[in-house]
Amino acid sequence: MAKNEAAKGTAKTAITPTRAEDYPEWYQQVVRAADMAENSPVRGCMVIKPWGYAIWENIQRELDTMFKETGHKNAYFPLFIPKSFMEKEAEHVEGFAKECAVVTHHRLVAGPNGGLVPDPEAKLEEPLIVRPTSETIIGAAFAQWVQSYRDLPLLINQWANVVRWEMRTRLFLRTTEFLWQEGHTAHATEAEAREETMKMLGVYATFARDFMAVPVFEGKKTESERFPGAVDTFCIEAMMQDRKALQAGTSHFLGQNFAKASGIRFQTKTETEEFAWTTSWGVSTRLVGAMVMSHADDDGLVLPPRLAPTHVILLPVYRGDETRAQVDAYIDALAAELRGQRLGERRVEVEVDRRDIRGGDKQWEWVKKGAPLRVEIGPRDVEGGMVMVARRDRPVKEKTSLPRGEFVAKVVEILEEMQAGLLARASAFRDEHTHVVEDKAAFEAFFKAKGDKEIHGGFALAHWAGDARVEAELKDRYKVTVRCIPSGGFAGAPWADALVGEGRCIFTGQPSPQRVVFAKSY
Amino acid sequence: MAKNEAAKGTAKTAITPTRAEDYPEWYQQVVRAADMAENSPVRGCMVIKPWGYAIWENIQRELDTMFKETGHKNAYFPLFIPKSFMEKEAEHVEGFAKECAVVTHHRLVAGPNGGLVPDPEAKLEEPLIVRPTSETIIGAAFAQWVQSYRDLPLLINQWANVVRWEMRTRLFLRTTEFLWQEGHTAHATEAEAREETMKMLGVYATFARDFMAVPVFEGKKTESERFPGAVDTFCIEAMMQDRKALQAGTSHFLGQNFAKASGIRFQTKTETEEFAWTTSWGVSTRLVGAMVMSHADDDGLVLPPRLAPTHVILLPVYRGDETRAQVDAYIDALAAELRGQRLGERRVEVEVDRRDIRGGDKQWEWVKKGAPLRVEIGPRDVEGGMVMVARRDRPVKEKTSLPRGEFVAKVVEILEEMQAGLLARASAFRDEHTHVVEDKAAFEAFFKAKGDKEIHGGFALAHWAGDARVEAELKDRYKVTVRCIPSGGFAGAPWADALVGEGRCIFTGQPSPQRVVFAKSY
Repeated sequence: MAKNEAAKGTAKTAITPTRAEDYPEWYQQVVRAADMAENSPVRGCMVIKPWGYAIWENIQRELDTMFKETGHKNAYFPLFIPKSFMEKEAEHVEGFAKECAVVTHHRLVAGPNGGLVPDPEAKLEEPLIVRPTSETIIGAAFAQWVQSYRDLPLLINQWANVVRWEMRTRLFLRTTEFLWQEGHTAHATEAEAREETMKMLGVYATFARDFMAVPVFEGKKTESERFPGAVDTFCIEAMMQDRKALQAGTSHFLGQNFAKASGIRFQTKTETEEFAWTTSWGVSTRLVGAMVMSHADDDGLVLPPRLAPTHVILLPVYRGDETRAQVDAYIDALAAELRGQRLGERRVEVEVDRRDIRGGDKQWEWVKKGAPLRVEIGPRDVEGGMVMVARRDRPVKEKTSLPRGEFVAKVVEILEEMQAGLLARASAFRDEHTHVVEDKAAFEAFFKAKGDKEIHGGFALAHWAGDARVEAELKDRYKVTVRCIPSGGFAGAPWADALVGEGRCIFTGQPSPQRVVFAKSY
Repeated sequence: MAKNEAAKGTAKTAITPTRAEDYPEWYQQVVRAADMAENSPVRGCMVIKPWGYAIWENIQRELDTMFKETGHKNAYFPLFIPKSFMEKEAEHVEGFAKECAVVTHHRLVAGPNGGLVPDPEAKLEEPLIVRPTSETIIGAAFAQWVQSYRDLPLLINQWANVVRWEMRTRLFLRTTEFLWQEGHTAHATEAEAREETMKMLGVYATFARDFMAVPVFEGKKTESERFPGAVDTFCIEAMMQDRKALQAGTSHFLGQNFAKASGIRFQTKTETEEFAWTTSWGVSTRLVGAMVMSHADDDGLVLPPRLAPTHVILLPVYRGDETRAQVDAYIDALAAELRGQRLGERRVEVEVDRRDIRGGDKQWEWVKKGAPLRVEIGPRDVEGGMVMVARRDRPVKEKTSLPRGEFVAKVVEILEEMQAGLLARASAFRDEHTHVVEDKAAFEAFFKAKGDKEIHGGFALAHWAGDARVEAELKDRYKVTVRCIPSGGFAGAPWADALVGEGRCIFTGQPSPQRVVFAKSY
C-alpha cells in the first residue's frame, strides 16, 4: 500500500502506466491493483481472487435470473468428452482439435527415474477431451431426452468451466481455463430455434447495458467468424477505451447440424420423425474483463453499482481512544440503515474497513478496487450527525459532507445515478468513435490515422459485399475484421440511420445490403 | 408415465423394487423416477438433470450463506494441477495418484489410420492432473498471499468440479467427476486452525440437520481413514435407511504439513518467520444422495421442504371447456398468493402443471419427484373456494379439502411441520438402530443377525482401544469400520450417555477412552 501511495505521488495516478501510455499494461495493472485475479503456475490458467470472483457471482446471479425467467433450467454435464463425440460434427472438431487438453491416463505410477509418470497400464482406450464447449456431450443426452414433439422445446443451461489451450493469454480476456455458462436448446421448428437464438442475444445485450453499463452492437458474424458447426453465429460487440472491439457474448443457430451428429430426433404431431433444431449461447468470465476495460480509469477499477460486491465502504477515522467507541457505534448503526435499502433485487452492500493502516492507503485501496461510494466518518461527523461521501465517478479528492439521514435516504438514488452515468459515458465514447466510412481511403485513414499503437480508430461503419477475400485482406493488412452485421444496439446513436439501407462495397464496388461494423478487436 | 402407472398397479408401490426387496436397486430407481440424474456415456460421470441440479443449487445457496456468515470468501483456482505440485506432500500424492485423470497433450492431430490422435508434437513437458482436491494448487497461491500475521486468517472457499477415477460408481454417491465446495484456510496458530476445523464441521452438521433433515454424528476419523496429508480428519456420519453409514462431509486439520509443502510462511508480530496452520473442508453432490437415501420411500423421492425446488405443485382438474378459464384464473391467483409467503429466506415456490396428460399420471409423477404438497383444483373447488391438498409425508391417497384462505395462511406452517417431521423420523430411525454393544459376540450378532444382505445392523457403539490391526480385521471380516470417534450430534439420544466414559476394548481388553461408532458404510 505504502509503496503504491509513494508511486502515486510521483505518477499522479494510482495506476502506472496510464491508459494513454500503455493500454494493455494499464489493464493488467488495474486488475492487479484491484486484487481481482492473478496468473497461476498453470500455463494460461488464472486464479480468480475474492474481489474478482464476487463480481462474477453477481454477473451469474443476474444472468441466471434472466435465464430462468425465459424458461431455462440448469443442469450439469460431464467435464470430459470422448474423442469420438467431438468427431461427430466435422467442422466442430476441426475448430477445437487444435486447442484441447487431452486426458490419456487415469493413474500415476512410480517412474524409472523416481517421481511419478502416467501409468502405461492405465492408458485410456479412447482419449477424453476436457470440454472446450459441450454441444456434442449435451447432444448425446438430448438424443435420449427428446422422443416426441411434447418434449420440445428443451431449454437447458449449464454453468461450468471449459478449457481451450490458448497460446497467448490475458487475465479474464483470454485464458486456457475459463468459467462460463452455455445454454443449449432444442426445438421442433427452424423458426422457433431462430427465435430462441435472437431472444438470448437480446438477453445478453440487455444484461450488458443494464448491469455492466456497456452499450453493445447486436449482430451476425460473417462466415469466417462463425462458431465451428453453426449455421449462424450472432454476437454482442462492445467498444473498449482503446477503441478496440470486444466480443462479449455469442448465440448460435445450429440448424440441424448437431441434431444430426448426435441423433436428436422427435416424432411430430403427424407422427413423422424429424431432427430437432438446436441453439447454443454463452458468455464467460471475459465479461469481467469487458467491464474493467469499459469503465476503469487511471486510478483503477470503476464498478457499475449493480455488479459491485460492495456499494458503500465505511471508513472510520479514529481520533484517539476516547471517541473510538462512539465512531464505531455510529458506523454500525449507519451500516444497518444502509443495508435496509435495496438496489434492484439486492440489498445495499456495505463493508466497514477497520483495519489499522494509514487512512490515505485505505482510501486509495478502495479507489483502486472501484467501490462506488467511500464514506469517511470521524468524531466530528458523529457529533454533527454527518457523513463525508466520495463517489468513484468523481475526482478522488472530491468529497461531500451530507447529513446522515439524507445520505441514507438518497443512497439508492446516487447509486442508480452512477450506474446510468457510466452507461451514458460509455455510450458517448462509443458513439464518438463510431464513424461512417464512405471509401477505402477514409477506411485506411481511420484505422491508421494516429500512428499510435494504443489507439485503434474505433468502429467504422462501411458497406461490404460479403466477399471473404476482402475480409481476409483487411485482417492481414490492418488487423481489422468485420465485427458484425448489426441488427440492434444502436437506436438513438447519431450514426444509426447509416446502418439502414443498401449501397456498394467500399473495396469492390459490389452491391451491399447494409453497412457492417469494422474494427480491430480483442 | 402410463407404463409406470401400470407397473404400480401390480407392484403396489411406484418404485420397483422396494427398499426391503433390493435397497441399492431401489435407490437407482428413485433417482431415475424423480428424473434427477442419469449415467453419461463418459465412464463414471453422471448427467445431473434439472430436478437434481435444482436441489444442488438449493444446497449451494444455503451453505454459501453459512460460509459467508462465518467470514469466508469465494475464489476460483485452476482445474489443472502440475504433477510436481501433487508430489510436494508425500502422503497426499500417495493417496491420489492411483485415481487421477492425467492430461498429457494439448492438441489432437489426424492419425495414421484416420481419426484424430493426441499430437506427439503437443505433448506437455509436465503432465497435468485434473484436480482431485486443491490443497496443493491453492497452497501455492496462499504462499504468495500470506506474508505477515496481518494477512491471517485467510478464509477461502471454492465451488468446483473435481475428478477421482472411481472403479465402481453410483449416481450422486460416488462418481468420477463430482461437484463440491472445498474450503481452505490458513491461520497463525494451531489453536485457531483447530477451532476453524471444528467450526466448519459444526456448520456441516447444522446444515444436515436443519436443511437436509438428516441427523449426523460429528466425530474424528481414525488414522486409517484420514485424508491423505492431514493431521486429523473430522466427519459427519449419517445413517441411511438400510442402516449403513454415509460420510456426508469432512473437515481436516492439516497442521503445517501443506504449509511446509507449499511454503506458506508468515512474519509473526515478533518478527520471526513461521509456517501457517491450515485446514480444508468439503461437501459434495453426495449430499443429494444422502438426502434421497434418508427420506425417500417405496413411492419415490421425499424432499425436505427447505431444499425442495418446488414446494407446492398445483394440478388443475379440468371438467370441460366452459369451466377451464375459471379454474386457470383461480389457480393463477392462488399461485401468486402462495408465492407471497416465505419459508425462511426463500419464497414459497409454486409450479403449475397444466400438461395435457392423465391426472393420475401427473399425480404420480410429482409423488415420485417428492414435491412436498400436491394441490388439485377442479371446478367444484373453484365454486366452493376450496383446495384439495395431499402431503408427501402422508399416504399418497390421503387428501384433505381445505378452504383456500386457510391453506394460504397455513402453507408455511405445514411445510415447517413436514421439515420437522422428516428430521424426527430420521432421528428416531437412527436412534432405534444405534445399539450399545458390550462384547465381541454381541458385535458379531449385531452385524450378522439378519442374514439379509440388505440390512446392515446399524450403528454399534463399542469400546475400542485404537488398535489398527483390530480395525483392519473387522473391515475384512464384517465390512465394518470405525465411522468416527464421536464428539457431537447425539445429545438427547437414548444411548447418548454410553458415549461418555472410559472402558475396555471389546476385542482386545485394552483401555479405551470412549466408545466409538462402528458401522458398514457407503
